[in-house]
Amino acid sequence: MGDGTKSRKMSPMARWQPHAPERLLVAALELFEERGYENTTVIEITERAGLTKSTFFRHFPDKREVLFGGGTMTGLLVDGIDTAPAGASPLEAVAHALDAIGREAFPSDRREFSARRSAVIAANPELREREALKELGLIASMIDALKRRGVPDLTSRVTAELGALAWKIAYERWRDTTNRDDFAELARRTLTEVRAATALC
Amino acid sequence: MGDGTKSRKMSPMARWQPHAPERLLVAALELFEERGYENTTVIEITERAGLTKSTFFRHFPDKREVLFGGGTMTGLLVDGIDTAPAGASPLEAVAHALDAIGREAFPSDRREFSARRSAVIAANPELREREALKELGLIASMIDALKRRGVPDLTSRVTAELGALAWKIAYERWRDTTNRDDFAELARRTLTEVRAATALC
Repeated sequence: MGDGTKSRKMSPMARWQPHAPERLLVAALELFEERGYENTTVIEITERAGLTKSTFFRHFPDKREVLFGGGTMTGLLVDGIDTAPAGASPLEAVAHALDAIGREAFPSDRREFSARRSAVIAANPELREREALKELGLIASMIDALKRRGVPDLTSRVTAELGALAWKIAYERWRDTTNRDDFAELARRTLTEVRAATALC
Repeated sequence: MGDGTKSRKMSPMARWQPHAPERLLVAALELFEERGYENTTVIEITERAGLTKSTFFRHFPDKREVLFGGGTMTGLLVDGIDTAPAGASPLEAVAHALDAIGREAFPSDRREFSARRSAVIAANPELREREALKELGLIASMIDALKRRGVPDLTSRVTAELGALAWKIAYERWRDTTNRDDFAELARRTLTEVRAATALC
């Protein structure tokens, strides 16, 4: 990983485009690290991934979006809230969704990659803006999913904000490579801490 | 307001640039409404405001920023939290800051203008991104100000998220032109509702 040789060797397979979004993400992250987000073109990303520009734009509307996974996280989150046990409290429904996200999106072997991705985003204002907007989108999706469970409007909004905060803190803790806990475990513990902190506000 | 005639008549006074940020904001909002954010240039904004391009860039780093007031809100917020009574709870300190914001930034005669500004932002993804990033910045400033009051880290983060949510909901209610309550009054009531909702999460 790093010099693109391996990716270019994969070029003959490109017509099937296996795991295209993942390959584009890895290529983009490498290039953003090597030469900066501003100095990397979509063409360069597709070349390193051994894919075509049209494949890129079939998956992502623009260069920034390649780091933000095209809605996978929203799907996991909404599905996790929808399928939480009927008697679960609003925050327990969010915890159920964070379990699924831990399993599917943040397995332990993804920890180092996630830390690199976060560092690239933190270094660029345009990427920070996109991430901020994505977070608002995730919160809006949580609110809708909670309302579908019959949670009143304001409680849904408060739950979604607290859930997003717990998620963010758990993610900070998880991607710290000195930490060895599972994401889901960290998320549950953080949600409990966040809930307890509301009494001290 | 709307055809720019008045602004252009002010041109001879431009060397003193009275209220330049406000004049640029009004001009930008008019132009974004008339022809869209994408189709408006900084030059057109400065011409309508009767000011120069260099004045624009002395106040704002880019075209988007003209709608976001260059840090005024952060200053009011931080100052309000810093000067809240010593015995105030974290959320009471935020309420104290929202009082100041209501007085200085959201007087009643600003209601219609604020609604227009919100509509322009909602219509453009780039402006929504900038607004999302601004919100994160305000939350970070609140966290720092609360920590300076000795509030523990996690409680500061939870308070800032709840404060930001109450602020957002109060602002939605306030800019609804059928509403006649003061912003500060709405903000206090909303903070109480948000705090009560945390027990239902």
